[in-house]
Amino acid sequence: MKKVNVAIIGASGYTGLELIKLLINHPNFILNYIGTSEGGVKVGDLHPSLLGVVDIDVKKSIPKEIAKKCELAFLALPHKTAMEFAKELLELGVKVVDLSADYRLSLESYERHYGVHLDKEHLKEAVYGLPELNREKIKKASLIANPGCYPTASILAITPFAPYIKKNTPIFIDAKSGVSGRGKKTTYSEHFVNVNENFLTYNALKHRHEPEIAEILASQNITNAIHFVPHLLPITRGMLVSAYMQVNAQIDAFKILTDFYKNEQFVRVRDEAVSLKLTAGTNFCDLFTAQKDDVVFVSSSIDNLLRGASAQAVVNANLMFGFEESMGIPKVAYVP
Amino acid sequence: MKKVNVAIIGASGYTGLELIKLLINHPNFILNYIGTSEGGVKVGDLHPSLLGVVDIDVKKSIPKEIAKKCELAFLALPHKTAMEFAKELLELGVKVVDLSADYRLSLESYERHYGVHLDKEHLKEAVYGLPELNREKIKKASLIANPGCYPTASILAITPFAPYIKKNTPIFIDAKSGVSGRGKKTTYSEHFVNVNENFLTYNALKHRHEPEIAEILASQNITNAIHFVPHLLPITRGMLVSAYMQVNAQIDAFKILTDFYKNEQFVRVRDEAVSLKLTAGTNFCDLFTAQKDDVVFVSSSIDNLLRGASAQAVVNANLMFGFEESMGIPKVAYVP
Amino acid sequence: MKKVNVAIIGASGYTGLELIKLLINHPNFILNYIGTSEGGVKVGDLHPSLLGVVDIDVKKSIPKEIAKKCELAFLALPHKTAMEFAKELLELGVKVVDLSADYRLSLESYERHYGVHLDKEHLKEAVYGLPELNREKIKKASLIANPGCYPTASILAITPFAPYIKKNTPIFIDAKSGVSGRGKKTTYSEHFVNVNENFLTYNALKHRHEPEIAEILASQNITNAIHFVPHLLPITRGMLVSAYMQVNAQIDAFKILTDFYKNEQFVRVRDEAVSLKLTAGTNFCDLFTAQKDDVVFVSSSIDNLLRGASAQAVVNANLMFGFEESMGIPKVAYVP
Amino acid sequence: MKKVNVAIIGASGYTGLELIKLLINHPNFILNYIGTSEGGVKVGDLHPSLLGVVDIDVKKSIPKEIAKKCELAFLALPHKTAMEFAKELLELGVKVVDLSADYRLSLESYERHYGVHLDKEHLKEAVYGLPELNREKIKKASLIANPGCYPTASILAITPFAPYIKKNTPIFIDAKSGVSGRGKKTTYSEHFVNVNENFLTYNALKHRHEPEIAEILASQNITNAIHFVPHLLPITRGMLVSAYMQVNAQIDAFKILTDFYKNEQFVRVRDEAVSLKLTAGTNFCDLFTAQKDDVVFVSSSIDNLLRGASAQAVVNANLMFGFEESMGIPKVAYVP
Repeated sequence: MKKVNVAIIGASGYTGLELIKLLINHPNFILNYIGTSEGGVKVGDLHPSLLGVVDIDVKKSIPKEIAKKCELAFLALPHKTAMEFAKELLELGVKVVDLSADYRLSLESYERHYGVHLDKEHLKEAVYGLPELNREKIKKASLIANPGCYPTASILAITPFAPYIKKNTPIFIDAKSGVSGRGKKTTYSEHFVNVNENFLTYNALKHRHEPEIAEILASQNITNAIHFVPHLLPITRGMLVSAYMQVNAQIDAFKILTDFYKNEQFVRVRDEAVSLKLTAGTNFCDLFTAQKDDVVFVSSSIDNLLRGASAQAVVNANLMFGFEESMGIPKVAYVP
Repeated sequence: MKKVNVAIIGASGYTGLELIKLLINHPNFILNYIGTSEGGVKVGDLHPSLLGVVDIDVKKSIPKEIAKKCELAFLALPHKTAMEFAKELLELGVKVVDLSADYRLSLESYERHYGVHLDKEHLKEAVYGLPELNREKIKKASLIANPGCYPTASILAITPFAPYIKKNTPIFIDAKSGVSGRGKKTTYSEHFVNVNENFLTYNALKHRHEPEIAEILASQNITNAIHFVPHLLPITRGMLVSAYMQVNAQIDAFKILTDFYKNEQFVRVRDEAVSLKLTAGTNFCDLFTAQKDDVVFVSSSIDNLLRGASAQAVVNANLMFGFEESMGIPKVAYVP
Repeated sequence: MKKVNVAIIGASGYTGLELIKLLINHPNFILNYIGTSEGGVKVGDLHPSLLGVVDIDVKKSIPKEIAKKCELAFLALPHKTAMEFAKELLELGVKVVDLSADYRLSLESYERHYGVHLDKEHLKEAVYGLPELNREKIKKASLIANPGCYPTASILAITPFAPYIKKNTPIFIDAKSGVSGRGKKTTYSEHFVNVNENFLTYNALKHRHEPEIAEILASQNITNAIHFVPHLLPITRGMLVSAYMQVNAQIDAFKILTDFYKNEQFVRVRDEAVSLKLTAGTNFCDLFTAQKDDVVFVSSSIDNLLRGASAQAVVNANLMFGFEESMGIPKVAYVP
Repeated sequence: MKKVNVAIIGASGYTGLELIKLLINHPNFILNYIGTSEGGVKVGDLHPSLLGVVDIDVKKSIPKEIAKKCELAFLALPHKTAMEFAKELLELGVKVVDLSADYRLSLESYERHYGVHLDKEHLKEAVYGLPELNREKIKKASLIANPGCYPTASILAITPFAPYIKKNTPIFIDAKSGVSGRGKKTTYSEHFVNVNENFLTYNALKHRHEPEIAEILASQNITNAIHFVPHLLPITRGMLVSAYMQVNAQIDAFKILTDFYKNEQFVRVRDEAVSLKLTAGTNFCDLFTAQKDDVVFVSSSIDNLLRGASAQAVVNANLMFGFEESMGIPKVAYVP
């Protein structure tokens, strides 16, 4: 099968590192451009774990140079910066998987939560890259808006219940993420002493992933009010989302989940509580459900950096280029 | 002021240890009986941290011996065992603060969730020892049912909203506890490797603290359905409870909490997210609230072993004997 | 290239799990027998992280059955049990990589530290499977004594200084291991609450890895007294060994390490302090050195379950069957 | 007994916080000045855990104002800044306990490791505040150089062996500290993701506590070369020091420790391995020893912020003002 040359733009953060780790071992993607805002180093300088593993030069990210060498670019950049690169790359004929929030929302919602959008044209054609929902569209897309981590775990937990959720009842999502979700910024909020043996909420009921969840669920005919409260776990990697819904009939929640995902290789419906350990290091979303009276509870576990970012991005890329969805995608967890 | 001789029965676990730590420094309680099922050791053998700090013999727990020496006994025993001791001690004229679940529920609810009750008589007169709700009754009680940890954090979060909660809407409680809440039992569920860097739910929608929360809230005129889902945090100490309610009017949730607890010295309403660190080592319950549309979210943080067990037990004992409520009760957290 | 059928005996522990993880993705080894003492389950029952990843039956371990199907067996068994299996398998013509201590020591030393040896014959021909020291012997071996975790990290740190270490001076090894090194046993020593936020030594100056280190170093002409003190780190995975030596000449310790390992692909000599994170998930041994006056300090980091057990076992198997040493061996660390 | 007014200068860091926690509950010291470089806030703003506990204004630190109100000042400042304050305060008649390194070393050693000394005069009269060594001098001192955390744990471990240590043999100190020892600075070295599940050495053989240890040990007739290597533990609080010595006679190391500290209330010699948990939250130094041939190993555990800084500072202050040494000093550990 043909090989495809790809670039990573924004390789210095955690999702950039995960992309490198995935792509250097991918059978069909050839990683031949690793870009940062500065460039001028080796990968082993940027990520000391890769010393002796990969010997690639890290370059300053220049779209025209990338377009000469690559058919696809992964953008692991802050929002705003991402759309500047995406716009130029798309115009140069390079396909894009954007890991930022820049192409995930409707224009109106984006501008309310993030500010002015600079690439309204491509926004219209971007495909939200959740394969379980949009697989066929992803295959034809030139621009993928790779989902946020919280939305991935939440939407996969809630969507199967679309036919059963009571109208006009709120859906509550109590979410918990490891610290790697915050990236490498160094404020006291990420200081070991402040996080270790601690636990707290942040941005309660006003996190920017809430409108993302709500918009995508609406596209799945779930128009209930979404109330989203994230918390910071004192761990490095992993995310657990607890979703609470009211349903209008006697349903078998376990069966609904099992049926909905019966053909999906990256969703595992478990009959015991799901845990972060069992998904860390993989692209799996593990689901567990419990119910009582008219209430359904779903617990959804993902690796925030992989299923919540980089591995899902490579799955999307696989689909875009006609490769098998699981090609180069990790399934073996970091246990113990 | 007069001194009161007290006993701890069941001193080998974590709540027993916390009781020892509190009582050896209490101005008015004299700890003169420390009992376990075996006895025959020194406190420093049972709890090596207390070597060189306390030099008390640990004895086999014998109610008649205790009655000769003590006016009050703290029971840090498993349920069932607790009521056997409580019954006999009460009949011998010893007051009791029971940290187990044995006297917390109505007879019917107890027998449904825990099995046959062996001391129905005293069950009727037991007072649920949450001072913010039952202070005056506690002062006159001979038998205190010391609240569970999850119920303490949950009830303090929800009760102030009694007049505002919409009838017939469910209340969701998403709770997270450190591992010390499980005690010293050694199954793989408590193994370091299984807990560390992990997070998961357990007993979702069927934990025995759910009926306790529901019954006490009902006594406060909150008869909504309660849906309770606990999770295990990879930390030693601390508990955070997230409560979600729907309210039927435009309210100022922060003001409601502040007003409700304005005379309480062990509840702090904060204008920033509460965190485990700020309550660990203390009897405080810290509360934070956020609201959106008709939804109120309350985040409630306590030390599960202190406010959730041993320190609250000593507050109750202070009230029972006419001492100042905060006597010997820690307010300074284990930070950093 | 020809494929080789292999078995794992003792698949329920952590090193068994790591062997499964390595072998299901190995290009040339076919894992066609997974045995435990009981058998009768699926791999996904034994290790829930492998649900949906591997679908192999776990069988009761029976040497004759194994010999029918496999050319090589990995033994992830307790000592004593291991040699019973090894003896029988070798007599049946199956090659063995034994991860226990049973074939690592001289007979005299083994019987002093572990008790009676039951397979003295094969003990004589066993090869100590540290590829950097014994690569050529390993290639020809039928029985590999796979090194202990502490010995691996220690011997790789100290051996390069053989020509320079002062005679009659002691070598001190201060070692620290994550909890996975203890396996899945559930005593209070492995209880989360007892390990978390804690740190302590165990078996100081009398750990059974001390004679293993001393014997192997002696084979490398280092006959100095070895004093070994291990500690338990509150982490899951990883091992750091600090070695202190006195040398009898002005040497350049960094250059000595660099030269010694210049052709080794699984030893990285770093010019900054090595850390557990950079080796976790890999077969690397990372080394860092500092020196002052006549003292050389070496810091040696490995993944205790991989370089310290299962990955090194597969490297040895690669060598035994003429495969490239790094075939199927992970180099990409579990960062972040 | 008379009360003594005291000040804390530099109250925003961890040792400042610990000083506040100790002094607000001290029977004889009245904390009536809390100073930072800026001032203008409440204690509860600086340290949110103290909201509702202490209601004191934090002021800008001005020596003349302090001298009007206080007889004693604790300096929790960076080195250099500390001696500027100490000099002025001493000239104004205020006694000083300095927690920085400014008065711990000889002039020559200080200037080699830290730079120019600005208060040579007071340096001569400063007393090194390790009560077990210098109790009588401390009682008469006006200026205490409060020991470093690593030196405290190391010197208490090694000093008892002064008569037995072989001349001209090196002493190795392999030390491990929790992250709170680094204070609140926020570089990537303190980022949760970089510390958690990690472990590494830093400043190996060139840490500035090495000359401090060597100078104080020399004052105790131990003139051997000291080789000191610190490591960073992925925990918040606590320090374990492993010391390795060669001795020139058959000794009973446990008896030597027990005898040496038999009258000391803040040193516990244990017959089992000491652990961080048992000293966290206290002023204890716990010691454990093992020996083999001519080698003695001592494991020394302290709370780096308390015995290693703030609690030891208050012990020193107690001695300076004729109070009982243990007045207001915590002995009950933060277990579990």
